Amino acid sequence: MTAAAPAPRGAEAARRVLERCDELARHSSMPDGIERVYLSPEHARVNDIAAAWMREAGLHSWSDPAGNQCGRRSSDPAGRPALLLGSHLDTVPGAGRYDGILGVLVAIEVADRLRETELPFALEVVAVADEEGTRFGTTLLGSRALAGSWREEWQELTDAHGTTLRRAALDFDLDPDRIASAAREPGSLVGYLEAHIEQGPRLEEADRALGVVTSIAAAERRLLTFRGQARHGATPWHLRRDALQGAAEAVLAMERLARESGSVATIGHVRVEPDAVNVVPGLAEFSLDLRDETAAGRDAAWGRIQHELQAIGLQRGLDLDVVSTHEAPEVVCAPELRDAIAAGIAATGDAEPPALFSIAGHDAMAVAAITEVGMLFVRCAGGISHHRDEAVRADDVALAIDAMEAAVLELAARRADGAGDTRPSSAIGA
Amino acid sequence: MTAAAPAPRGAEAARRVLERCDELARHSSMPDGIERVYLSPEHARVNDIAAAWMREAGLHSWSDPAGNQCGRRSSDPAGRPALLLGSHLDTVPGAGRYDGILGVLVAIEVADRLRETELPFALEVVAVADEEGTRFGTTLLGSRALAGSWREEWQELTDAHGTTLRRAALDFDLDPDRIASAAREPGSLVGYLEAHIEQGPRLEEADRALGVVTSIAAAERRLLTFRGQARHGATPWHLRRDALQGAAEAVLAMERLARESGSVATIGHVRVEPDAVNVVPGLAEFSLDLRDETAAGRDAAWGRIQHELQAIGLQRGLDLDVVSTHEAPEVVCAPELRDAIAAGIAATGDAEPPALFSIAGHDAMAVAAITEVGMLFVRCAGGISHHRDEAVRADDVALAIDAMEAAVLELAARRADGAGDTRPSSAIGA
Repeated sequence: MTAAAPAPRGAEAARRVLERCDELARHSSMPDGIERVYLSPEHARVNDIAAAWMREAGLHSWSDPAGNQCGRRSSDPAGRPALLLGSHLDTVPGAGRYDGILGVLVAIEVADRLRETELPFALEVVAVADEEGTRFGTTLLGSRALAGSWREEWQELTDAHGTTLRRAALDFDLDPDRIASAAREPGSLVGYLEAHIEQGPRLEEADRALGVVTSIAAAERRLLTFRGQARHGATPWHLRRDALQGAAEAVLAMERLARESGSVATIGHVRVEPDAVNVVPGLAEFSLDLRDETAAGRDAAWGRIQHELQAIGLQRGLDLDVVSTHEAPEVVCAPELRDAIAAGIAATGDAEPPALFSIAGHDAMAVAAITEVGMLFVRCAGGISHHRDEAVRADDVALAIDAMEAAVLELAARRADGAGDTRPSSAIGA
Repeated sequence: MTAAAPAPRGAEAARRVLERCDELARHSSMPDGIERVYLSPEHARVNDIAAAWMREAGLHSWSDPAGNQCGRRSSDPAGRPALLLGSHLDTVPGAGRYDGILGVLVAIEVADRLRETELPFALEVVAVADEEGTRFGTTLLGSRALAGSWREEWQELTDAHGTTLRRAALDFDLDPDRIASAAREPGSLVGYLEAHIEQGPRLEEADRALGVVTSIAAAERRLLTFRGQARHGATPWHLRRDALQGAAEAVLAMERLARESGSVATIGHVRVEPDAVNVVPGLAEFSLDLRDETAAGRDAAWGRIQHELQAIGLQRGLDLDVVSTHEAPEVVCAPELRDAIAAGIAATGDAEPPALFSIAGHDAMAVAAITEVGMLFVRCAGGISHHRDEAVRADDVALAIDAMEAAVLELAARRADGAGDTRPSSAIGA
């Protein structure tokens, strides 16, 4: 089954979605840009706004014990397994206004359209509280809580001001000891669908509005530290053990080796001690975010990088410390959900939509621990993301809403036919 | 005239100086290290302590309008031009306990020894309030105020917390509009002598306790910024304009080119924006501290560096911004003061003390704007400085006190003979 949405209806919804993106962008901790981190006052405000929009769309809404803002059709009986639609509302510093946010608002539009529609599953929306992980240095906190992967030790994570997650949760009126209870029951979900901007140039280069995601790349993040000796800036060359010089070599080597390996590496954080203009740095700390289509490819690239970092340390008399802060294998989107999204896009006029894997991480990676996942990508301008210049076209947003609605109806039709069960086998009977 | 100090007297004074270094080291803003910056509560406390020690040494003591703690022999008539002895009490973060501090305490010991001695000039001690410049990013604030080089716009300099120097001065009970009045009258000084740890390995490598400084290197500090574009960590290589990759190339190039030019370069500060693990840095800011025996040599090295930085920016699509934050030509120590210090060291038993130029900057550079300057270097362990492992030998400190006392007496003998006038020609009649 497919649904061909009339153009005016899509255009009106797209205009509303884009206006809402603009409205949420005003809730920021930065004076001249967008930054909205987990458990911040801005987080509380956008949750309240999203809750109001969910209610307008015929959902009842609640904040779960992790601060995720949830909604469910009021007409859906309690206990019926739900199809979950959503994405996240948190942002990096200096963010754009669509990464994550667009997917939440598309989900609300789809729920609004389907408020009277009989479906073989309940329909829920989630506005995830933390995907980017920039406040506490650990990503996907909201979606991992929802998926039952919360770790109690995360209460002790601290932000740049030394505030613990525990303290921040209390200030947000959450009980830090109950965050884990945000976990959905296995079997309570029939699947998860997420719309998201592509954050890359492939749709634009192919002149296509929408794409079907095949998988989400494997990723690993590490915090790397070179330790040498802090010395006065008058110290002769042969007596220096300059940690920043080592880090500079490492930054260039990581770019070169990742490129050669077909992986993608980003060094987004660097810090030196003592950080004084006239002191040779005794310590340099830097991050590595390494992604590859598969975990095996990622690990092969890291093996080459690690070897090179050790050689730099030996050469410069620096000690190297490596801490893994995040690890995720590749997540493969469920064939049935891929097919439903492809059918949904086909209903908007693109009979053979492009299939792409996602280099960026998404909430779907975490949610995959509890149910099968599917994703729809929306073209964005110049592949730009995590930047104020992030942009989408209104007609693409209209198509995304139409396609996501059609994908839900396609899945409903398959389920009504008994064509599949999207619960992962590990969850059945658990 | 020379003075041979009996060993026991020097040993006792050295022990007192080292105990006082330990005592001052306890006044720090860091819990597990030494950091004492301009106009901080720690600055106020060590000024009070130094004032008490000055009074014990027979000096009357006052804090000048810039926060420099001064002392003058009570017996010296007002208006008599003074020989000024001193160094600074501020420190970098994670500092040692001797850089600057040792010179202030040696000066107090010498004043104590000479409290009854007839001299052809007044004798003053100064504990300079800011030499390192780590709080407000501009060095020698205390000594430049004393030397009449204060600039009113420095009131608007801000520290890492956004506090202006003006605000900090008010909190320190100084009148920010009167700091410039710390300037000494031209002609009110007959010269400036400073003892300081070498901060390099040359005395240790030559197995000598003390050395005569011939000149202080030319230095320039710049704040460099590469601007690219902040992008999501999933951005493909060919769409990135990664400011940190450019900075890493620059850091390595600056080391290589400075070495090739015979200069010394330190990159002690680096910062990226937005500083998030999964965002390609759109901005990388880093410092360059470049030193050479002469301004001409320094400028030649900078010319090569600047050419390379521009090439890196072009190659990577980055805009380069360069701001000069500090510039000092080489300062040549006055021959008469060099001779007096050499004679003072000779009186301790080293008839031909090593002559060295200083790669590090010193208060003497600023004071040279108002009077002639001379410096005595004290051997330090391993050339280590700006680090907790900074160390001096007690017997070297004893020799330094004896040599500085003898240098003052040597100068007194020359002045009593009418052998010279150490005021720079530019100051005469000003």
